[in-house]
Amino acid sequence: MIKAGIIGATGYAGSELVGLLLKHPGAEVVFLGSSSQAGTRFSDIYPRYLNQCDLVLSDSVLEDAAKVCDVVFLALPHGIASGSVTSDILEKTRIIDLGADFRLKDADVYESWYKVVHKGRALLPEAVYGLCEIHRDEIKKARLVANPGCYTTCSILSLYPLLKRHLVDPLTLVVDALSGVSGAGRGAKVANLFCEVNESVKAYGVATHRHTPEIEQELSLAAGREVVLSFTPHLVPINRGILATCYAKLLPGIGEDEVASAYAECYGGEPFIRLSGALSETRNVQGTNFVDISMRIDGRTGRVVVVTAIDNLVKGAAGQAVQNMNILFGLDERTGLI
Amino acid sequence: MIKAGIIGATGYAGSELVGLLLKHPGAEVVFLGSSSQAGTRFSDIYPRYLNQCDLVLSDSVLEDAAKVCDVVFLALPHGIASGSVTSDILEKTRIIDLGADFRLKDADVYESWYKVVHKGRALLPEAVYGLCEIHRDEIKKARLVANPGCYTTCSILSLYPLLKRHLVDPLTLVVDALSGVSGAGRGAKVANLFCEVNESVKAYGVATHRHTPEIEQELSLAAGREVVLSFTPHLVPINRGILATCYAKLLPGIGEDEVASAYAECYGGEPFIRLSGALSETRNVQGTNFVDISMRIDGRTGRVVVVTAIDNLVKGAAGQAVQNMNILFGLDERTGLI
Amino acid sequence: MIKAGIIGATGYAGSELVGLLLKHPGAEVVFLGSSSQAGTRFSDIYPRYLNQCDLVLSDSVLEDAAKVCDVVFLALPHGIASGSVTSDILEKTRIIDLGADFRLKDADVYESWYKVVHKGRALLPEAVYGLCEIHRDEIKKARLVANPGCYTTCSILSLYPLLKRHLVDPLTLVVDALSGVSGAGRGAKVANLFCEVNESVKAYGVATHRHTPEIEQELSLAAGREVVLSFTPHLVPINRGILATCYAKLLPGIGEDEVASAYAECYGGEPFIRLSGALSETRNVQGTNFVDISMRIDGRTGRVVVVTAIDNLVKGAAGQAVQNMNILFGLDERTGLI
Amino acid sequence: MIKAGIIGATGYAGSELVGLLLKHPGAEVVFLGSSSQAGTRFSDIYPRYLNQCDLVLSDSVLEDAAKVCDVVFLALPHGIASGSVTSDILEKTRIIDLGADFRLKDADVYESWYKVVHKGRALLPEAVYGLCEIHRDEIKKARLVANPGCYTTCSILSLYPLLKRHLVDPLTLVVDALSGVSGAGRGAKVANLFCEVNESVKAYGVATHRHTPEIEQELSLAAGREVVLSFTPHLVPINRGILATCYAKLLPGIGEDEVASAYAECYGGEPFIRLSGALSETRNVQGTNFVDISMRIDGRTGRVVVVTAIDNLVKGAAGQAVQNMNILFGLDERTGLI
Repeated sequence: MIKAGIIGATGYAGSELVGLLLKHPGAEVVFLGSSSQAGTRFSDIYPRYLNQCDLVLSDSVLEDAAKVCDVVFLALPHGIASGSVTSDILEKTRIIDLGADFRLKDADVYESWYKVVHKGRALLPEAVYGLCEIHRDEIKKARLVANPGCYTTCSILSLYPLLKRHLVDPLTLVVDALSGVSGAGRGAKVANLFCEVNESVKAYGVATHRHTPEIEQELSLAAGREVVLSFTPHLVPINRGILATCYAKLLPGIGEDEVASAYAECYGGEPFIRLSGALSETRNVQGTNFVDISMRIDGRTGRVVVVTAIDNLVKGAAGQAVQNMNILFGLDERTGLI
Repeated sequence: MIKAGIIGATGYAGSELVGLLLKHPGAEVVFLGSSSQAGTRFSDIYPRYLNQCDLVLSDSVLEDAAKVCDVVFLALPHGIASGSVTSDILEKTRIIDLGADFRLKDADVYESWYKVVHKGRALLPEAVYGLCEIHRDEIKKARLVANPGCYTTCSILSLYPLLKRHLVDPLTLVVDALSGVSGAGRGAKVANLFCEVNESVKAYGVATHRHTPEIEQELSLAAGREVVLSFTPHLVPINRGILATCYAKLLPGIGEDEVASAYAECYGGEPFIRLSGALSETRNVQGTNFVDISMRIDGRTGRVVVVTAIDNLVKGAAGQAVQNMNILFGLDERTGLI
Repeated sequence: MIKAGIIGATGYAGSELVGLLLKHPGAEVVFLGSSSQAGTRFSDIYPRYLNQCDLVLSDSVLEDAAKVCDVVFLALPHGIASGSVTSDILEKTRIIDLGADFRLKDADVYESWYKVVHKGRALLPEAVYGLCEIHRDEIKKARLVANPGCYTTCSILSLYPLLKRHLVDPLTLVVDALSGVSGAGRGAKVANLFCEVNESVKAYGVATHRHTPEIEQELSLAAGREVVLSFTPHLVPINRGILATCYAKLLPGIGEDEVASAYAECYGGEPFIRLSGALSETRNVQGTNFVDISMRIDGRTGRVVVVTAIDNLVKGAAGQAVQNMNILFGLDERTGLI
Repeated sequence: MIKAGIIGATGYAGSELVGLLLKHPGAEVVFLGSSSQAGTRFSDIYPRYLNQCDLVLSDSVLEDAAKVCDVVFLALPHGIASGSVTSDILEKTRIIDLGADFRLKDADVYESWYKVVHKGRALLPEAVYGLCEIHRDEIKKARLVANPGCYTTCSILSLYPLLKRHLVDPLTLVVDALSGVSGAGRGAKVANLFCEVNESVKAYGVATHRHTPEIEQELSLAAGREVVLSFTPHLVPINRGILATCYAKLLPGIGEDEVASAYAECYGGEPFIRLSGALSETRNVQGTNFVDISMRIDGRTGRVVVVTAIDNLVKGAAGQAVQNMNILFGLDERTGLI
């Protein structure tokens, strides 16, 4: 049994991880850390897990977790993990960081988008970007996995085959994405109150959202050249789910066949990617680790439109973290997830 | 034009009041007070009112409001109004208090349910309970009107004819009520976040909710004897609306005819009460000052079941406050409301 | 492996059952019947199950299912099962009927509430009411299990210990219940359109809902005398979940201790019943087979108030059906459910 | 008093129109037609209007309405109005058609997108496209006004100044729009049931939605050259509201100043258009005729992103229809709407 710990267990991603690990046949939750709720039973905060996980929360001390865990998941606001993960820690345990600190390879880019100092630059070279479908081989050997963001997982997987196969003009990408409210976290903010969110939709972070450079980093890698794109997140009144609608101008001569082949070849054997004839809907992936990808060719405009759905708390956070754990420990990738 | 002020204008009830007064042909908003947001334009907090109410918020100083207003609405947490309304203030302006401080005639009862000291006991005798349909004549002459609570408006109007006409056993009353989330206010609390409320329902304050003594006070008055009842509020994932389902054991010999007559006679001429053959639904009263009352006789159990719907922010708060203002200033009661 | 079939697989209860059986380690779905969608792949109707259950739907012919299945679940509108289940069928396979036809022991009561002729009176004596916590021993030996209704499961389990132990006056029972919209089924009706249901709550079937006699039958059995009660269902805008708030007058001398003991003794060893200090909320049981029961004593009125939550599609339908299957086939009751 | 009639009064747009006309000081509803509900009181179908509009529905006979009405609003599925509006009718009354039949100037384009024969080609030349802010002068003299679609109103007003002033490359336009469910109408379809729509988002009609040619027609007119664009509608679980997020590549040398000036000059005096510094949200326009437009320049990609919100039933249907009526009859455009 893999002994697992979670630091930041009381946020939405952390608690989702608890739920997934409880059902995982090869892992066991042995440490739950919370900076604000130490001393409380986990199930007092999440009564959903009454009689299932009544563990008492510890302080969020990574050293303590590292002593007793084979793997520690960090589900923390950005800026904390970069200061607490050290080489010393990585000799004791594996780290899967659900936050942003180790995702961007270039610490300067990180600092310019996140407006905080990166305190762990020395570890960046060894951190592996944990988008399983793309970096599986590197993940196998990693000690420190940077679990991707929710919007980024959905956006990158939507567009990756088009850029990898050079089917579209990389200067024409537009990603228009919708997210459920759990993506905003469990902080007590007026903007996330029920009455502020319900019965309304809005865009936010237009041209400034921090997931943008993460998407661009990975798509640039795929394209072999720099990709700069428009990314617009929207808040929609659902608890969970992300839908990304992605636009790209097809290169001359590229049509439905080439596009379909690219996706089939890139994702054919992937256990969690479903290529669907019907347009993707978030309800079909709710509570699952699936990535539902659908696409349409618009002959009138010469664009391809890709519509992809994930559950932001599962494939966009906790589920992908478990998938990464499975890869790290040599388990079948689907264990505990299907 | 009645010059109106609102202290506590940025809460849900306060902002609803702004919206209603903007459409009122006989009133004008001249003062908006907020203890936390003074100096900000109202429409910066509620962009819904951009170009319609761009007034800058003042500090919540009742003396300042009283100087320039014919009527001041207080939309504050309990315990504040009782300390700030004085005889001096009442000589300068009329007060319509949307909070709880002047609703209960017995300050000891108030203190035992609200757990705070009542600082305005001397004014209690002159305060009028502003349930318009029942206390209209007293309201006309009042300087200080205690606008009823949302649950209480709905519950009292549901059961009033039954008790007034002695058709039911007053020891058998059960009020089971559902409220939209705006009833919980605009405070930044985890419990009211979208993801905590959406896709779930719960009861709260079972046997302890503070609207209970208010309902009992008014129904006891109607019955001419003490009424003690069970009141259970529930939170449901809608922005606004209250539905009260009320149960009472019919006295021997009382049936559908007596019940129907009682409601028709008590409410026949009321502009805002609609007696409906169909069961009441909150959507039919949303955004209106209507009270939709429906009832069924259950011959099997000998009970009458009354189902009533109001909009908690309108008839349950701001709309009734405007109705009270109309009564106070001799306007047609419906002005600005239908 | 238990070979399982579902007739009526495309309704909400039927599809939930498919989902549960897919995760069940001891069962296998071998037959899916649908009267309206025969010939279509199940996953074309429910893309959520793409790549997981791509079985083609058969006609709803019980004989065909019985030939290949160890157990057949019926998820049909009332009035159909009573005509299609026969002694002959029961010699070939076990039947778990999620509909109403075999729940009421008295066919006359059935006919008076459902307004249809009961075509299977001869089988009523052997049908077992499948409320697992109460009829476990009879279920073990049954060929025909009548899976209880959603409201009834929640209501009966809420009040059972109080009546079994004679702690309350059985003439004072009021059950006020809220249900998510999936309880209304997947029929294309204007009343269940999103815009008709969203942002509103309503009561329906006041004093006439068909789950009433089912609750009364079981509570009368528990009490050893006839119980007649008020039951009011409400529709709330959530997909799934039932919350029942139940009121009963305590007998003289009965208080918190006696009530707590009754529940602890009746339900102490039950794997799916959780007695909770906090008030029950439907989100805590969403997607699970749990029954969360909480209670409060109201000293002022002498009543006990019990608040219970279940997921109407799981413990209120498909989950309990699987629990019944587990009992029928001698498996651990929790298999595939926790 | 303008005597107004509505054919198709029981749909969502029709009933919204009833509500608006009830509050309109210069108009009176004298005829309500419904092909399916003739003989029923309007308030029996919409109890919201009990005591406010208890008119009995007539058959949907345009000739009958024309005899008694100064203006008749048609709120019908496409393909009906083109066959029933005639020159004869237009001599008796003004027509404001909320459907699609008279919006596209080119009947061939209409037939290729709508897949039905256009039966009123002779009237197309005189029909005026009723987007008030753009065609006000023509509307004043019209007998037949084609009220624009909901998505189209929002999309055209979003992009009009950019194309009119030649600030963007017209081949780079992408409109990604979200709509509340009332946009799908009140037909009893499984796809629009609460449980199918709630807690999910989806795209639909990708590259094929019928509002596309309407947007292109008007933007081509504004640009003085053919505009072809990508338009993707999405369904989001709210009752009402449209949010359009629009992307366009800025021409060289064009920046924030030029863009801001264009919008200010085009819309400066418009009573219903609000240019806002904050990003638009649908809740701010809910129940109003406002169009909230916000924009951001993305220096990294050289794009302008325009985010616009309207209420699909008001400015996107009934409100704009009333605005058109006000223009037609020489009233202040805001009458009954602010």
